[in-house]
Amino acid sequence: MDATIIAVGSEMLTPQKTDTNSLYLTDQLNSLGIEVVEKYIVGDDRVCLANLLLHALSHCQLIILTGGLGPTEDDITRDSVAAALGRTQYFSQEICEWIEARFRRLGRRMVEVNKRQASVVHGADVLPNDRGTAPGQWIEADGRIVVMLPGPPKEMRAMFESQVFPRLKAALPPMVIRTRFYRVAGMPESDLDQLIAPVYTRYANPTTTILAAPADIQIHLRARCSTEEECESLLEEVGRQIEPLLGDRLFTCIGEPLEACVGAMLASRGETVAVAESCTGGMLGERITQVPGSSAYFSGGFLTYSKEAKTNLLGIPETAHPVSEETAGAMAEAARHRLSATWGIGVTGEAGPASATDVPVGTVFVGIAGPDGTQVKRLQIVGDRSRVRIMAVQNSLDLLRGRLR
Amino acid sequence: MDATIIAVGSEMLTPQKTDTNSLYLTDQLNSLGIEVVEKYIVGDDRVCLANLLLHALSHCQLIILTGGLGPTEDDITRDSVAAALGRTQYFSQEICEWIEARFRRLGRRMVEVNKRQASVVHGADVLPNDRGTAPGQWIEADGRIVVMLPGPPKEMRAMFESQVFPRLKAALPPMVIRTRFYRVAGMPESDLDQLIAPVYTRYANPTTTILAAPADIQIHLRARCSTEEECESLLEEVGRQIEPLLGDRLFTCIGEPLEACVGAMLASRGETVAVAESCTGGMLGERITQVPGSSAYFSGGFLTYSKEAKTNLLGIPETAHPVSEETAGAMAEAARHRLSATWGIGVTGEAGPASATDVPVGTVFVGIAGPDGTQVKRLQIVGDRSRVRIMAVQNSLDLLRGRLR
Repeated sequence: MDATIIAVGSEMLTPQKTDTNSLYLTDQLNSLGIEVVEKYIVGDDRVCLANLLLHALSHCQLIILTGGLGPTEDDITRDSVAAALGRTQYFSQEICEWIEARFRRLGRRMVEVNKRQASVVHGADVLPNDRGTAPGQWIEADGRIVVMLPGPPKEMRAMFESQVFPRLKAALPPMVIRTRFYRVAGMPESDLDQLIAPVYTRYANPTTTILAAPADIQIHLRARCSTEEECESLLEEVGRQIEPLLGDRLFTCIGEPLEACVGAMLASRGETVAVAESCTGGMLGERITQVPGSSAYFSGGFLTYSKEAKTNLLGIPETAHPVSEETAGAMAEAARHRLSATWGIGVTGEAGPASATDVPVGTVFVGIAGPDGTQVKRLQIVGDRSRVRIMAVQNSLDLLRGRLR
Repeated sequence: MDATIIAVGSEMLTPQKTDTNSLYLTDQLNSLGIEVVEKYIVGDDRVCLANLLLHALSHCQLIILTGGLGPTEDDITRDSVAAALGRTQYFSQEICEWIEARFRRLGRRMVEVNKRQASVVHGADVLPNDRGTAPGQWIEADGRIVVMLPGPPKEMRAMFESQVFPRLKAALPPMVIRTRFYRVAGMPESDLDQLIAPVYTRYANPTTTILAAPADIQIHLRARCSTEEECESLLEEVGRQIEPLLGDRLFTCIGEPLEACVGAMLASRGETVAVAESCTGGMLGERITQVPGSSAYFSGGFLTYSKEAKTNLLGIPETAHPVSEETAGAMAEAARHRLSATWGIGVTGEAGPASATDVPVGTVFVGIAGPDGTQVKRLQIVGDRSRVRIMAVQNSLDLLRGRLR
């Protein structure tokens, strides 16, 4: 089955925006054995979209549209699909009531324009949206499938996963897919690839995909076979060769983020962690508390972005250099001590764009204080303010993981 | 002039790759007053590309293709353009010699397949490539312009800048683009649209685009005229009508994020803010410190995710309910007091997925303590853990903005 993905919305044609929904969709469709042969990005233009739809319908069996299902004049997807398929639309009282109820739950009143979202192409199955007001639609016409999904990635993904994926799967010959999802800290993508490419390039099944985020490389192995056993045996065969090459840098085989992995280690040991953050300004605490249930092991923290806060809240001597090994270690120890935690993490650095001290931008010190003493690591991070902060947090979590191992 | 950008290459249809050449090109074209109305991404399929070209030629005056100009079978752009325009190609001895000379300079011998790159569509102007072997082509046909550029961004950009941009500029009547970029807090997208659609739908120029993130709606106005003055006068005409409708909810006309806006207000008043975060776990501090120079007004903060931390670090009575108006107010006051800040923000709530107290998930209390007293707002946020936290932070910043106004 060949697919075309269409992203709708004039904002997707600006120099700032790139359509990322199609990357997720391509990954999902490929996992079903469906090839994406074209992608279109169109503005809020009814005629333009309807013509492109006709073109796609002429050679693809599956067309997925994202976006343009909102309540405003700009939201043209429903109308264009109806026009291209030569069908009319009807007003669904049921959807309208559902939208109204949603607004009521939010303590708001539905405004008139939202009724537009209750418009349904004749013959379509409505795909409910738990996370927003725009329902999706699934239409089968002359051996083709046209699916409309909302643009916001969270809504789109949830709906695809729970409603579109199972329907597509049912429409295709049975195939089983099993995945293994490694994550690796503290290694550049090119080094990692050099290391494991000799293994994975020998296998067309499972397919291997490598994704890189700052200090967090993901390796997806995906096996497609007719039985679960065949899949698992292929994954085991490749995994057995890759895992020893990665060693301690491998922190999960099931794709959980580093904060979840560290959190699980702390929880299983009945230990706790406290933080003191300077250049990261709260990002480390925010990451740790992204994990539901993190209150079991997160004792709390201090945001000591200024020199005064370091002194007042943590007792760092005024004479200490704010971006130094000494300060990072003392921050970690003070956080640990003042919050009676098993572990303390202190992070201080120059995130940029300009350095406020004599230390170059990108210099970060991470201190880890624990029952067996305090260790400080100096990092020199390349990149902009945001990347320096993300890398500082990722390294902090990975250093704690090293101590917990 | 309307443009279509086409990225050619099967690798652009994988889940990992996104076409970024078109972002650069869109930015450049917009600066010339050329609108990008569609973007296509196509694999290495001659028929598919030729058909899409015919479609684009039917309604666009400018078509720019990137990629598919290499020496292999897969490189289909030249053939597809020739087919769509109904022209033949000829072998250019001059280009062939140029490619051979390039190989010689690199100490290599040109292989036979490279001759394919010396193929030129009849009537095309050849665009030399200083950084690679694939020359581009510029073709004018029936009032349309078709430009072929290589895929590697460095080659593509250098050629666009030095050869395509000047040609396009010469082909166009002079045009200027000016934008206004509003952001609005505390208002759902549909309510906002209902409010301002009666204004903006009356204008084709400037164009209006509305983008929604949690508690942060962006309104882009873009005017295209022959002079800067005409643009500014159009933006002023529409802005004068929209701004009063949005009132205090409008926080910027230049697109800066809420934390930058609040930061600038604090800085100009010589005031400071401290935070105490429970359910947001550091996200509020992280947002405030995303702004370079925020140390001038961010006094620091406390991450009091657990009940014990609230008591130990902030002196909240153990008898107080951790998710309550009382606690949020006391957190704000303690943060303000203990960090000697002008303002204190306290955030406590149930982010979910499950509630740890008798308060429902999504309930958040935000306290703002300042020279004129303490105010607490109760929010009931719909959505998952991540959305509850983002909304809590956005509301916290907006409440402080309200107090600073």
